[in-house]
Amino acid sequence: MKIIIDAMGGDNAPAAPVKAAVKAAEELDVEIILVGKNDILDKELSQYSYKKNKITVVNADEVISNHEEPAKAVRSKKEASVVVAAKLLKNGDGDAMLSMGNTGALLASGLLIVGRIKGISRPALATLLPSAKGPKMLIDAGANTNCKSDNLVQFAIMGSIYMRNVLAIENPTVGLMSNGEEEGKGDELTKETYPKLKNAPINFIGNIEGRDVMEGTADVIVCDGFVGNVILKTVEGMGHVVSRKVKGMFMRGFITKLAALFVMKGLNEFKQTMDYREYGGAPLLGTKRPVIKGHGSSDAKAVFSAIYQAKKFVETNVTDEIVKNINSMEDKAND
Amino acid sequence: MKIIIDAMGGDNAPAAPVKAAVKAAEELDVEIILVGKNDILDKELSQYSYKKNKITVVNADEVISNHEEPAKAVRSKKEASVVVAAKLLKNGDGDAMLSMGNTGALLASGLLIVGRIKGISRPALATLLPSAKGPKMLIDAGANTNCKSDNLVQFAIMGSIYMRNVLAIENPTVGLMSNGEEEGKGDELTKETYPKLKNAPINFIGNIEGRDVMEGTADVIVCDGFVGNVILKTVEGMGHVVSRKVKGMFMRGFITKLAALFVMKGLNEFKQTMDYREYGGAPLLGTKRPVIKGHGSSDAKAVFSAIYQAKKFVETNVTDEIVKNINSMEDKAND
Repeated sequence: MKIIIDAMGGDNAPAAPVKAAVKAAEELDVEIILVGKNDILDKELSQYSYKKNKITVVNADEVISNHEEPAKAVRSKKEASVVVAAKLLKNGDGDAMLSMGNTGALLASGLLIVGRIKGISRPALATLLPSAKGPKMLIDAGANTNCKSDNLVQFAIMGSIYMRNVLAIENPTVGLMSNGEEEGKGDELTKETYPKLKNAPINFIGNIEGRDVMEGTADVIVCDGFVGNVILKTVEGMGHVVSRKVKGMFMRGFITKLAALFVMKGLNEFKQTMDYREYGGAPLLGTKRPVIKGHGSSDAKAVFSAIYQAKKFVETNVTDEIVKNINSMEDKAND
Repeated sequence: MKIIIDAMGGDNAPAAPVKAAVKAAEELDVEIILVGKNDILDKELSQYSYKKNKITVVNADEVISNHEEPAKAVRSKKEASVVVAAKLLKNGDGDAMLSMGNTGALLASGLLIVGRIKGISRPALATLLPSAKGPKMLIDAGANTNCKSDNLVQFAIMGSIYMRNVLAIENPTVGLMSNGEEEGKGDELTKETYPKLKNAPINFIGNIEGRDVMEGTADVIVCDGFVGNVILKTVEGMGHVVSRKVKGMFMRGFITKLAALFVMKGLNEFKQTMDYREYGGAPLLGTKRPVIKGHGSSDAKAVFSAIYQAKKFVETNVTDEIVKNINSMEDKAND
């Protein structure tokens, strides 16, 4: 299996992706294609020892920064690392791709270059969030604003398949994010979506509310990308503020630092719960081949998690199953 | 000044509202009208000593529970405590009202009985949320789904007036909740609202994102009630989960409990930050007289905070200023 990595994207590129690639080539039984400036990547790689047949560098002279208008940049910068990576994926030179760079540019590359699965009108970004009951999926976490109910139904189906295959959750529960639990609650979009989810081939548990995100009430949280982005960033922001507060609580003086030693185990577990790095990247679901968005601030550990996740994404045939499900739904609709 | 309290609403009614009323009558230079079943309230009051001319009981034989359909219940239950309270407010028998009961029923009572300020098409529920920079306002926190851009502009104006008058924040900043900071980001609603907020008589700082909620980037966070409800409940839910985790960290054994003593001061500050009780209730902005929703799980301390807040709401002439601002905007529009 070959995983293609946009090695120029993200706050810690190219150091973090290269380090993670070396570790993955060693430990995960995968080959890695690193895409980016030849000389920079070769120099970065030269400090490691690794099997040369496991890691290939493909040159890409340009980079799309976080400040560029994504779709425009993808169209105009033919030699951007994310664009070259997407072309390799499209051509079958690799089995999945991963980028820690500009989210919009990765989404645009997925849509415009890798291409949508036939029948999927809007691929969705699916993020794994920590909860009291383990990682849960938020879909769509920001790829699409102004969704239609049929989009949300497809998100629910794709998310369920991913959680079942990649995270090994049997019969994953699906909740529709709304402003109340009762069936009648919601805005126009969720009210229209509710009955459709009831009839979809998923384990639908009804409306859920914001408080269910962290409680982990549903394995798959379905929402429009605007709402999903707000949830994701609210949780991230609160995680930062709370972590700072907890840290501040222990850093006041000698005695409180001593106390920190006593609760080190609990502190580490707490940190781990709040740590996005444990959860790999965010899969873009609905493209013809697996595309994964790694967090912009990923260190080597986080990139490694995302490579591991990409491997599982490929191995467990998520994409094929999405295709099969969408086809069978279309067949039913045509009956 | 007279504050009307629906003494039958909320998880801890009537004990908490009655206890808070006695304390408020003693300490806040206000008179209190308690609305609910005569015999129950008289019995509850009989355990306290207080100046009889400071607290009046007005009988209301019915209660609207949290499980009832709000608008229907408000129309059919003429003797419900929240309905009777709203009628007293409308008739000028008191200066503000407060309920910890069914949120929808309070909103419906505010709308149907107290009535909207002329020119305000949708009164909004404004919640104060904790942040790294003190309490910030989320408006609309759930009264209205499917808002129009003109509604959001009115929310921004009303929220700014409240934050300036009641929380004494000079020139409060207003942020529009979106899925990206740039002006072009957002869904249809926020894209349409952005230019209108730029021209409104407020201190608009542009789009903000979910992470800004807890960072406290804006004093007033403007959004549709669907999104606001999701944010509010996500933050509340995360607060619960994190508090449980932090508590669990210290309750593992003797040594960790000892450690808790060392960081007691920090722990208490942490708890306080996460504690909705510090922030009083959620004002409904845009009704002819002040209406405040207290948290359903309010204890006497939280009800007391909400009474204090109701008093400031009245004293600082928030409602009059909203009327003035809306009139002057209409005059401009008609010029």
